[in-house]
Amino acid sequence: MKTLVIGGCGFIGSHVVDSLVSAGGEVRVLSRRPEAFRAPVDGVDYVIGDMAEADVLARSLSGMDAVVHLASTTVPATSNLDPEGDIAGNLIGTVRLLQVMREAGVRRMVYLSSGGTVYGVPETDPVGEDHPLRPVTSYGIVKVAIEKYLHMDHRLHGLDYAVLRAANPYGPRQGRTGVQGIIGTLLWRLSRNAPIEVWGDGSVVRDYLHVRDMAALCVAALERPTTGVFNAGSGRGTSVAEILDIVARVTGRRLDPVRQPGRDFDVPRIVLDSGKARRTFGWQPEMALEDGIAETWDWVREQTALT
Amino acid sequence: MKTLVIGGCGFIGSHVVDSLVSAGGEVRVLSRRPEAFRAPVDGVDYVIGDMAEADVLARSLSGMDAVVHLASTTVPATSNLDPEGDIAGNLIGTVRLLQVMREAGVRRMVYLSSGGTVYGVPETDPVGEDHPLRPVTSYGIVKVAIEKYLHMDHRLHGLDYAVLRAANPYGPRQGRTGVQGIIGTLLWRLSRNAPIEVWGDGSVVRDYLHVRDMAALCVAALERPTTGVFNAGSGRGTSVAEILDIVARVTGRRLDPVRQPGRDFDVPRIVLDSGKARRTFGWQPEMALEDGIAETWDWVREQTALT
Repeated sequence: MKTLVIGGCGFIGSHVVDSLVSAGGEVRVLSRRPEAFRAPVDGVDYVIGDMAEADVLARSLSGMDAVVHLASTTVPATSNLDPEGDIAGNLIGTVRLLQVMREAGVRRMVYLSSGGTVYGVPETDPVGEDHPLRPVTSYGIVKVAIEKYLHMDHRLHGLDYAVLRAANPYGPRQGRTGVQGIIGTLLWRLSRNAPIEVWGDGSVVRDYLHVRDMAALCVAALERPTTGVFNAGSGRGTSVAEILDIVARVTGRRLDPVRQPGRDFDVPRIVLDSGKARRTFGWQPEMALEDGIAETWDWVREQTALT
Repeated sequence: MKTLVIGGCGFIGSHVVDSLVSAGGEVRVLSRRPEAFRAPVDGVDYVIGDMAEADVLARSLSGMDAVVHLASTTVPATSNLDPEGDIAGNLIGTVRLLQVMREAGVRRMVYLSSGGTVYGVPETDPVGEDHPLRPVTSYGIVKVAIEKYLHMDHRLHGLDYAVLRAANPYGPRQGRTGVQGIIGTLLWRLSRNAPIEVWGDGSVVRDYLHVRDMAALCVAALERPTTGVFNAGSGRGTSVAEILDIVARVTGRRLDPVRQPGRDFDVPRIVLDSGKARRTFGWQPEMALEDGIAETWDWVREQTALT
């Protein structure tokens, strides 16, 4: 199978590429820039360009059997500052992608949605896929709208798709800019002996999933065309306070975080019920959180030593 | 109360204006063009302009207490031809409106959503507000996304809103261009002795609501600030074949429709459960369908006589 990975040089994308290559697949990547942390992967066809440009998109899709769409121009924390840009960059961009895919006859997509934002403040614990969708970030609203366009394309034009509503992914290659999640941010800052900030009182609970487990699910969903929406999490809730404890243990550092006020778009607790993905794809997360954080810390220190 | 009615020169908007004026309210209208079928209403402040222009919007909102937002640049039948335009015109336009409302301190909105498209193919009969949202038109997807932005604004910035998911409104002042609904389209064509077209075998069932009943609910929702989503229908299903029978009876004409293939975005049957609006606002539809069609036929003939 020939797969186009849009956003394939990003944090999750780079691991999806690894999994696809390991499985013997042909892989093309469309990305706005090369990978930040390593050289291009042997055998992968890289197209560096913007999916908003029609010719770039058409060229990237040519000859492909399926698309894994992981690209986003925003993160939850920034999307509410510019919802118009969020809509223009992500929603309109994906609607165009769907049209070009129809024209090119590419009828299979795995789409990375957001388990942490589409549900809003959970009414159940854990949260299943049927939970009402009440996002409080533009990021989450745009993800929901994209999910609806995929469903429409399925109904009207036969697109097969798997929407993966990802929990909080973490692991090697998570960005150092501090917007992609607390674990990467903490470890990067510790590696530079920079001060650490924490929003709120430490009670916020999230569902953390190792990025290779996330990538494995993307590949499993690609291999077994089953149209639907699937939560992608560990099923375990971990508080910010517990993350700080694990990070202190793993790194041997004493953490003395600066406390910032809680953010209005942070829901207090969300843990995903990913039973549907487990049953449908025979998938399950393999990596224990403390092991994954230790691995990530090793990787961050390697990177820091290189610079 | 001072109310801005966006789209107040349109089919539903003109009746909302009538109801507000009757109730003694101060009314301003923002509309891209004047009413098609009558002179400006005495005492109403008309701003003719495009809500996409920031200065027009700011001027229109100045001094207002609430907004009734009825404007749309698309209809379900056209939205799938240009989903990007649908998103740009309606979703981005409304996100901008919300921002200007925040800046102006206007914290009450009644928004016209679409009961006929947001649910997709119904799993229940009738359909309640908790039914899954699986639209098969861009029109419906954009309505859903707008509902989500309203909810976000409520959670983060205290907007009070009522989303009214309207059934199929009909009645006097429905447009003659043939995109606003079967009843108006049939009557306008009959008045010109033009041939009549029907999509599908006549079995498609819809929930028809007289436009003054629709307007009355808008005003009731405006007067009683209760944030939420409300179906707005008659609760009764009527097939296309039944509509044809009623129209034949009311007009005394023999109908001989040209049958066109069914449209892929038409769901087979949808009837709304509007119990929540009835209970919350003490509202109920007053007009029987055959009476309403007879009234509309009288109005269409008057208009035809004038031209």
